[in-house]
Amino acid sequence: MFSVTVRDRMMVAHSLAGTFFGPAQRLHGATYVVDATLRAPVLDSHGVVADIGAFGHALREVLGELEYRNLDDEPALDGLVTTTEVLAKIVAERLARRISAGELGTEHAHLQELEILLHESDIARAGYVHGLTGTT
Amino acid sequence: MFSVTVRDRMMVAHSLAGTFFGPAQRLHGATYVVDATLRAPVLDSHGVVADIGAFGHALREVLGELEYRNLDDEPALDGLVTTTEVLAKIVAERLARRISAGELGTEHAHLQELEILLHESDIARAGYVHGLTGTT
Amino acid sequence: MFSVTVRDRMMVAHSLAGTFFGPAQRLHGATYVVDATLRAPVLDSHGVVADIGAFGHALREVLGELEYRNLDDEPALDGLVTTTEVLAKIVAERLARRISAGELGTEHAHLQELEILLHESDIARAGYVHGLTGTT
Amino acid sequence: MFSVTVRDRMMVAHSLAGTFFGPAQRLHGATYVVDATLRAPVLDSHGVVADIGAFGHALREVLGELEYRNLDDEPALDGLVTTTEVLAKIVAERLARRISAGELGTEHAHLQELEILLHESDIARAGYVHGLTGTT
Amino acid sequence: MFSVTVRDRMMVAHSLAGTFFGPAQRLHGATYVVDATLRAPVLDSHGVVADIGAFGHALREVLGELEYRNLDDEPALDGLVTTTEVLAKIVAERLARRISAGELGTEHAHLQELEILLHESDIARAGYVHGLTGTT
Amino acid sequence: MFSVTVRDRMMVAHSLAGTFFGPAQRLHGATYVVDATLRAPVLDSHGVVADIGAFGHALREVLGELEYRNLDDEPALDGLVTTTEVLAKIVAERLARRISAGELGTEHAHLQELEILLHESDIARAGYVHGLTGTT
Repeated sequence: MFSVTVRDRMMVAHSLAGTFFGPAQRLHGATYVVDATLRAPVLDSHGVVADIGAFGHALREVLGELEYRNLDDEPALDGLVTTTEVLAKIVAERLARRISAGELGTEHAHLQELEILLHESDIARAGYVHGLTGTT
Repeated sequence: MFSVTVRDRMMVAHSLAGTFFGPAQRLHGATYVVDATLRAPVLDSHGVVADIGAFGHALREVLGELEYRNLDDEPALDGLVTTTEVLAKIVAERLARRISAGELGTEHAHLQELEILLHESDIARAGYVHGLTGTT
Repeated sequence: MFSVTVRDRMMVAHSLAGTFFGPAQRLHGATYVVDATLRAPVLDSHGVVADIGAFGHALREVLGELEYRNLDDEPALDGLVTTTEVLAKIVAERLARRISAGELGTEHAHLQELEILLHESDIARAGYVHGLTGTT
Repeated sequence: MFSVTVRDRMMVAHSLAGTFFGPAQRLHGATYVVDATLRAPVLDSHGVVADIGAFGHALREVLGELEYRNLDDEPALDGLVTTTEVLAKIVAERLARRISAGELGTEHAHLQELEILLHESDIARAGYVHGLTGTT
Repeated sequence: MFSVTVRDRMMVAHSLAGTFFGPAQRLHGATYVVDATLRAPVLDSHGVVADIGAFGHALREVLGELEYRNLDDEPALDGLVTTTEVLAKIVAERLARRISAGELGTEHAHLQELEILLHESDIARAGYVHGLTGTT
Repeated sequence: MFSVTVRDRMMVAHSLAGTFFGPAQRLHGATYVVDATLRAPVLDSHGVVADIGAFGHALREVLGELEYRNLDDEPALDGLVTTTEVLAKIVAERLARRISAGELGTEHAHLQELEILLHESDIARAGYVHGLTGTT
């Protein structure tokens, strides 16, 4: 199995509703350092998992839709508790949709999964692995 | 699949018996920077893999039982060669037992595995993946 | 010259007023990974720059006053643009005051400077060096 | 499942033929920081996945065959586009061959897979997972 | 003293002439992860050492002139042995010239020094500190 | 001012006598990841601060004298409380002596200072800056 990973980042505000979240119930914020990984059992015709430039650009677009915002006020996230796990899934789904739409080029049938890791600090992170079966 | 990871650390002394271990046969020591990862196919009712505060606290308790000690003198480790691999397994088993006992709360049936990575330096680490099937 | 550094972190929301700051004018947030360094030309009577436990605890107290908050609503920061540079200075001044008040113990006359580095992401950070002359 | 990882590095020049690669078509270079991971369901008779010294030495030998070279001129790589993914596979295959030949000792039937990760910078990496079934 | 640091990177090929350099005499390459730091005793009118966006952009321009190239063939570097130390000085001087030319804005008289650190791997780096006195 | 830094590591056991040190009074251990930095206002005749290979080798020799040992039993450290600060100074002094003795070559009069940073974990480190005036 091959893999390729690119790193980017976003800075957001949000709050987590419910006493379960303790002080994180208050409006606060986070820098999420984001590692996006594509895995594929074979390489494409150029000898890569994916065009790393296009992959990084697609990730940038997804993060650009969320960053420098208060997630509590985002209509698209209405009703969601934006835990790091939930955000990882949202980033993965949005990025998978772009891959499926051909943003990394027409060769993407070999891609098997996409993993998003969100580092919220030097000592905590959460992630989501999204299957890409059926993106062709 | 979702994941959440917390990082902590412990400082211990030990020796590794047998000529196989070369200079590490002598009493020496290590800082283990510990990454503990829980994986689950679904989130719990709060939208997380686990309460990250409770998870970090349980890991702290496990490491607190070992740190600032000479592992050669620990009755609980008697007869064990405390290689990094073996220590990763011990930390994983002790932490899994705490999870099973409800230290992360009553919702833990969705947790599928626990991975412990022990970084013994900037260039070497070892780990153990512990299945959580049956912890409910 | 000797030095000792401890690392901690805080998560906050804020906005930076003025077109100069572009998208950071919007309410957003950051995780600041904080490195606090004390420098001294000589060691104290215990052979350290400072009690690392007490130093880490004092830093925790300072960060605890700011974290999990929207800095735009903090009365103590009223009228301040909370750039990373300004926050580094605030953390340094508050920590220096605690040192001066004896929170690291009575031996602090040998301490010469305190540096606070705030990493706002994996690719950007700002810092402030605060002289400690006169803290005795 | 147990794992052990060692880190090393190599510095090479190369170019990537084809307009697909943009500016990387020009002769340039990279430092690859290399993480080599062995995974095994059980430990060997010494309580380790593998002799970490021998493992690091075998990786050093593999990297020594490639480093401080222009990969475009290497007869062994003739006709290959040396993308990070392809290099990860080459390193994995060469290292697996050494393991199979007994360079980590005679106990290697328990080893299940070898993963090579090549970090080409702080924000990009690629990897290859090589099954070790049948290396005995 | 305040500081602000941005990180970027470049990938180049080169060779170092002279038996002193051992295997690095051969054509090889490197990824340089670059930390650029500005220091100033006071902040500018916006409460920052410098506009971090403009600073990052200026660094990008400087690295863009060198990256994805074989430095042995660069007319501007003719006759230079491009050690990491020498490259750090070249990057610092080029970046200082851009600052002096107003690329970070008209407020730059308060800037006191610029430090460039080039990480050539996870275990080696070199740097150069360039005084900015007289850039106004 | 130019600088060059190399990184290495050592694993030791020790205890710190005195109630001041709390649980670290017990025999425990540490991995010290060591950054050694040389600073010089000018480069030598080869365009470097120092021969990085020779510098790394000299550091290795110094760490080799201490690693895989219980520092409490080292005659050379008798009567010393081996805090991280004290160990940084010992490493610096031993390395400076080797530089002075010509282990980096005959060109060392331009070297101005040597800094040793000992990272005892991901969140704590201590250092010592040793002047090299007079090493010629």
